Amino acid sequence: MTQTQTKSLFGPVAEDMILVEDLLESTKDVELPPLKRMLDHSLEGKGKRIRPGLVLLSGSLGEYNLNRLVPLGAAIELLHTASLVHDDVVDGAASRRGRPTANAVFDNALTVLLGDYMFANAAEMVTRTGSLAVTRLFALALMKMTSGELDQDAAAFDASNDVQQYLRRIGGKTAALFANATEGGAVLAKCDERTVDAMRTYGYSLGMAFQIVDDVLDFTGDEELMGKPVGSDLLEGTITLPGLLFLERYPRDNPIRRFVLAKRDRATRLREALDAISSSEVLNDSLAIARDYVRRGNEAIDYLPASAAKECMVNLGEYVLSRKS
Amino acid sequence: MTQTQTKSLFGPVAEDMILVEDLLESTKDVELPPLKRMLDHSLEGKGKRIRPGLVLLSGSLGEYNLNRLVPLGAAIELLHTASLVHDDVVDGAASRRGRPTANAVFDNALTVLLGDYMFANAAEMVTRTGSLAVTRLFALALMKMTSGELDQDAAAFDASNDVQQYLRRIGGKTAALFANATEGGAVLAKCDERTVDAMRTYGYSLGMAFQIVDDVLDFTGDEELMGKPVGSDLLEGTITLPGLLFLERYPRDNPIRRFVLAKRDRATRLREALDAISSSEVLNDSLAIARDYVRRGNEAIDYLPASAAKECMVNLGEYVLSRKS
Repeated sequence: MTQTQTKSLFGPVAEDMILVEDLLESTKDVELPPLKRMLDHSLEGKGKRIRPGLVLLSGSLGEYNLNRLVPLGAAIELLHTASLVHDDVVDGAASRRGRPTANAVFDNALTVLLGDYMFANAAEMVTRTGSLAVTRLFALALMKMTSGELDQDAAAFDASNDVQQYLRRIGGKTAALFANATEGGAVLAKCDERTVDAMRTYGYSLGMAFQIVDDVLDFTGDEELMGKPVGSDLLEGTITLPGLLFLERYPRDNPIRRFVLAKRDRATRLREALDAISSSEVLNDSLAIARDYVRRGNEAIDYLPASAAKECMVNLGEYVLSRKS
Repeated sequence: MTQTQTKSLFGPVAEDMILVEDLLESTKDVELPPLKRMLDHSLEGKGKRIRPGLVLLSGSLGEYNLNRLVPLGAAIELLHTASLVHDDVVDGAASRRGRPTANAVFDNALTVLLGDYMFANAAEMVTRTGSLAVTRLFALALMKMTSGELDQDAAAFDASNDVQQYLRRIGGKTAALFANATEGGAVLAKCDERTVDAMRTYGYSLGMAFQIVDDVLDFTGDEELMGKPVGSDLLEGTITLPGLLFLERYPRDNPIRRFVLAKRDRATRLREALDAISSSEVLNDSLAIARDYVRRGNEAIDYLPASAAKECMVNLGEYVLSRKS
């Protein structure tokens, strides 16, 4: 992403994000040639770095010590990347955002080990914060992430899931790491307990909104920008919020259920399910739920005195709601 | 294993091993039903717990604080189990020691996530030691383990590997975690630097011997006791110490190389390679190298005053050399 975009997303901490980038870059510096090739590939596609951005923003509310905050930011981004590497193996995905996945370039076996290495490196990096408490929060976040993913995969093609289960699941698979970024940043900056709590709530809420928007984009997104076909989640059997709302409202003779249960004509059934969702109100209703999470996040930090960081965090909520890919 | 066996292996700390067992057992206590089923399966087959035993033995050389040592022992055993879970996915193994693997019972996708969860839980557990230094050593050990595994898998079916590469590889994949157990135990027990160094060397050496014996047993072991056919490593393309010694000594027209390069008649070529190794001196020579590692380990701890723990550690070396499965 360009410098202007970084600046507009991360405001007062934008310039320090280069330190996170440098630290991430340094993880590619390994002796073993096959590992080096795999790390180069996996860390090449630069994301928006929203999670490290949250660490620095949160850390700027107290003692802004980059020696502690930068390792946490890089560790969380590395953990996030490792989880994507494993997700792609699990889903057998061939590409992500238009780039071939590690499992497509190398093979599944080596890619599982690559992800493990990156998890380990992330764990090592978080110990550089000097805080055992933050290291523990980080491990707990990974437990929640993998539980959430596992829960989602175990429930694939099961139309009896409900919205509450979905929210619990994305709370683990996505919001837990956002919360870890904001809570961890505040703990490292020695913020008082109220601020730590507020930042955890803010990060968690933002993460929930982020995932809901992601799930809506799976129906409405531009295939080229997203780098994957519309309806990919449903095709894999993952029924996200729009589908669950649709099932809740039209319990009988429902095209989502028909697709999930279909033994043949799956392409046609998928098309019907996607059409039904797109022509209904559930996509907008899902976005309204995302908006409500952003509101809750903003409410949690509302008491904080005005600052560039606070303004930036409120703007991040708007960014998450309005993103197109 | 029976109580008598535990007693004879772990001497003065044998009775405290139940605390490690209890802590491991507690990790199965999760809400999510699919995760619980998978954890129950993976943690059911009880190993010899040699790594937690080493933590407690090492910890008994200083301030023997079970509140710190038990979490390290359980974390290391959990990490070891998680790595086996992923190895079995990577190798597509259907059984291990006569029990079906997790990937055979569930599926590869869920099993990758199960392993991730166990890694995360192990990381969380090691933070309960209260030591950031030990947590960091633990993460570094996992980095070495996964690098070693990755190196091994990337080099499969490559007959140009040599003994030095093999030793570096098993140093990562096996000895690093043994060293982490003994070094970590000594650090937690606040031993002096010399003891910490000695215990690291002892654990590393024992781990090297352990893996070499394991690799020899792949040629000589009882298929029923091992729960896998003779020659499994070679079949997967992993050329271990006996094979490498054989390649070194008979560089021309070598049955190991012929198997590795074989495009057809692989069963026959494998049989020829196994026969060549079994009727040569390389198995005994490999065991002699293992014995030398045990000797180096004992040498490192030789200066320690006589104690039940020291005697037990020397006996562990003999046990590792004489085991049959």
